[in-house]
Amino acid sequence: MPEITVNMAEGRTDEQKAGMMRDITKALVTHLGVDAEAVVIQINEAPLAHKMKGGQTFVERKAALAKK
Amino acid sequence: MPEITVNMAEGRTDEQKAGMMRDITKALVTHLGVDAEAVVIQINEAPLAHKMKGGQTFVERKAALAKK
Amino acid sequence: MPEITVNMAEGRTDEQKAGMMRDITKALVTHLGVDAEAVVIQINEAPLAHKMKGGQTFVERKAALAKK
Amino acid sequence: MPEITVNMAEGRTDEQKAGMMRDITKALVTHLGVDAEAVVIQINEAPLAHKMKGGQTFVERKAALAKK
Amino acid sequence: MPEITVNMAEGRTDEQKAGMMRDITKALVTHLGVDAEAVVIQINEAPLAHKMKGGQTFVERKAALAKK
Amino acid sequence: MPEITVNMAEGRTDEQKAGMMRDITKALVTHLGVDAEAVVIQINEAPLAHKMKGGQTFVERKAALAKK
Repeated sequence: MPEITVNMAEGRTDEQKAGMMRDITKALVTHLGVDAEAVVIQINEAPLAHKMKGGQTFVERKAALAKK
Repeated sequence: MPEITVNMAEGRTDEQKAGMMRDITKALVTHLGVDAEAVVIQINEAPLAHKMKGGQTFVERKAALAKK
Repeated sequence: MPEITVNMAEGRTDEQKAGMMRDITKALVTHLGVDAEAVVIQINEAPLAHKMKGGQTFVERKAALAKK
Repeated sequence: MPEITVNMAEGRTDEQKAGMMRDITKALVTHLGVDAEAVVIQINEAPLAHKMKGGQTFVERKAALAKK
Repeated sequence: MPEITVNMAEGRTDEQKAGMMRDITKALVTHLGVDAEAVVIQINEAPLAHKMKGGQTFVERKAALAKK
Repeated sequence: MPEITVNMAEGRTDEQKAGMMRDITKALVTHLGVDAEAVVIQINEAPLAHKMKGGQTFVERKAALAKK
């Protein structure tokens, strides 16, 4: 406790994810005064077809970006 | 904001999922008055063995339906 | 099944929330072919101080909007 | 309703998961007085690289345990 | 780890909730072989107006039940 | 995107929560290369009676700590 869930689309490296989770751990230790051992983080990663923003799936958003 | 998470079992097509997410986006734009761009939806999809209803996994429920 | 969770900041009326949830239900019935009775939706509502976007809490965002 | 989400790292057998979900179902039927059919459980399973505790990913924790 | 989230409508006593969480803890200890200390459970409770099943809010479902 | 949910027990100040969320935002901007504006965080806070660790509610854990 506390437990953090990160919902994100696939496509980052394990290094990026580990770095992000380490800094989130630090944020909780610093501001809440909890032990690092009490901080649990899980990334729930979704394929691009399982995520939508602005009415477009991330497959469509990626394709739109590639055209620019 | 707002953020929507859909927990569901595997087995639908990408077209079904995209259509569902588009209509959820519209529901939020219509009723909350937010921009579509502010609406983020993620499907957290589970294998049939990772989901249970009524004390039966979705593997067992599918097998029971097939027998009928 | 499926189960939908909506994370959002406080401030909407019950009518807005009910209308949104009814249309989300329809989106699942239409696109996934499930019975409405199988669709469960929960809103997890947060006070403005418990939500952040762009590095600002929703308290700060509201104050910034009021100044414009 | 109610809906239970279990966030856990990969590595358990389907038998372990099914047994766990059956007993969680019983816990809700016993204490809340709901029908088993109303209880829905989903496991959101993460690869070891997508989970961190105590500032270490579960990949690092597993490696540390193996050295002992 | 693992972390369990229970989404449910308001209306149960603290005794019911504590009993349910104790039995969920046992379910994980028994089937996954983890220490009880590693099991964290949180109930995210919603007012009746923030939950819908079958296209009806729990306010409407309660009123319908009361009429029967 | 990404969306972060923090499940925690009540008892922290708004300053602690805002500081924590600001540093989580920075963690994502630094490691994932996203705009701060794309990072949304919500705290789902639970009363002490709605959270359990090690088979004890946070009400019981607090009482046990007070006796030491």
